[in-house]
Amino acid sequence: MTSPEVSAPAPDASWTFEPIAVVRSCFKEKFGIPRQPGLAPHAMGTLKFKKSTGYSQALKSLEGFSHLWVIFVFHEHGAKNWKPTIRPPRLGGAKRVGVFASRTPHRPNPIGISVVKILDIRPNAKGGAEIDVEGVDLLDGTPVLDIKPYVAYCDSVPEAKSSWATDPLVDRVELKYSALALKKIKTVAVKIPNFAKLVDELMSLDPRPAFQRKDPPGGHYGFRIMDWDVKFTAQKGYLAIEDLLPFEKLNAVKKQNSK
Amino acid sequence: MTSPEVSAPAPDASWTFEPIAVVRSCFKEKFGIPRQPGLAPHAMGTLKFKKSTGYSQALKSLEGFSHLWVIFVFHEHGAKNWKPTIRPPRLGGAKRVGVFASRTPHRPNPIGISVVKILDIRPNAKGGAEIDVEGVDLLDGTPVLDIKPYVAYCDSVPEAKSSWATDPLVDRVELKYSALALKKIKTVAVKIPNFAKLVDELMSLDPRPAFQRKDPPGGHYGFRIMDWDVKFTAQKGYLAIEDLLPFEKLNAVKKQNSK
Repeated sequence: MTSPEVSAPAPDASWTFEPIAVVRSCFKEKFGIPRQPGLAPHAMGTLKFKKSTGYSQALKSLEGFSHLWVIFVFHEHGAKNWKPTIRPPRLGGAKRVGVFASRTPHRPNPIGISVVKILDIRPNAKGGAEIDVEGVDLLDGTPVLDIKPYVAYCDSVPEAKSSWATDPLVDRVELKYSALALKKIKTVAVKIPNFAKLVDELMSLDPRPAFQRKDPPGGHYGFRIMDWDVKFTAQKGYLAIEDLLPFEKLNAVKKQNSK
Repeated sequence: MTSPEVSAPAPDASWTFEPIAVVRSCFKEKFGIPRQPGLAPHAMGTLKFKKSTGYSQALKSLEGFSHLWVIFVFHEHGAKNWKPTIRPPRLGGAKRVGVFASRTPHRPNPIGISVVKILDIRPNAKGGAEIDVEGVDLLDGTPVLDIKPYVAYCDSVPEAKSSWATDPLVDRVELKYSALALKKIKTVAVKIPNFAKLVDELMSLDPRPAFQRKDPPGGHYGFRIMDWDVKFTAQKGYLAIEDLLPFEKLNAVKKQNSK
């Protein structure tokens, strides 16, 4: 074995990576994407790999694992504009914490890591290997730099102290559906299994940014899921889902002042 | 809010990142580095950040977290030479699995993720911020692309099925120390606290590559820890640590045929 020091690049050299895959997901816009993976189990996605015999072979034996790490690029967040501190939504948008003490996409190198559940692996799909995954928090079109199997003995630290980043599952928002919204959701669900569950999961996380959550009751909002706009109003103690309309641009998680 | 599609780069664009920090660790060579983080708790390391007020500020509030993700580059593994399948040491070097079903450094994009325990954070250290961490599996000089707080509710999946990647803690190798080795280790330990524990942790993982573990008993080896060479022989059912010498190049985890 030769000495490894010989060909090592300088530690401050820059590194260039080409995506191995791209994410297809139900999230067409940044607004309202769950803040972490796993919060909306019915948020399904597909990793579509570049066509390569190598990539297909590289998936061999992955079927023995239940979960997967996706290492990806926050491709719509310019790293150039990062600021040292941010105001995490979990703290109501008031307290500032450092970006290295948060999972914000706005970081010096906009790289993300997400655990997702493996649903189906198709190494030999036409056009390139595909993996269906569940519980994604990834924007449609996200470039994937790497995937790794989740290895519980080294990745799982259930006793880890996570400061303010506590489980948001405990404070889901109550939802009330109008008869009209329920009817339309049911119609969509004929073609898209679990659509109703997905709407429920995403809406119960309250897709509004922190500053809008302080709005007085009565405000009207629109939130995009796939190609639909969920029209809802904020009421005292709950969100009222009023209607489901084909998505119109500029309406996503936006207060409809005209109403 | 403007439509996010406007400025999004092509999904197959390449991405260039500059390291934010470099790792200083006890591992000066690739050989014998624990296969995953946490296996040798006394393997201490320091993340040395580039001097930047922004980076120092970006560490604000990290002290509330116990563990950290380090996103790094396997800088001594040329991605150009990756092959679709590898033979993981955990399977005795016999069975082949895909690189995407393994945590091998030899992957299309040589990016690694490791959980480490936070020991000390010094945002205002001279020369740039520093974080001392415990349980590293990182080579000295490793470029760090990002750090993120470990968030238990989304990162910890204790029930994940990890196929063949089972906990190696169950089959540590038995060790026997010569009086000479013990005496020398004690001498070093005066200057380097926990050096004896570190030697014990690393040697009990058996630093030899899979193919050497099948050698007949009696073979002589050398394994580098910091600037020392641990001289040991493989016996039936245990490793015998014979001596500790200043490190000589080309000796690391190498069978000493001349002996």
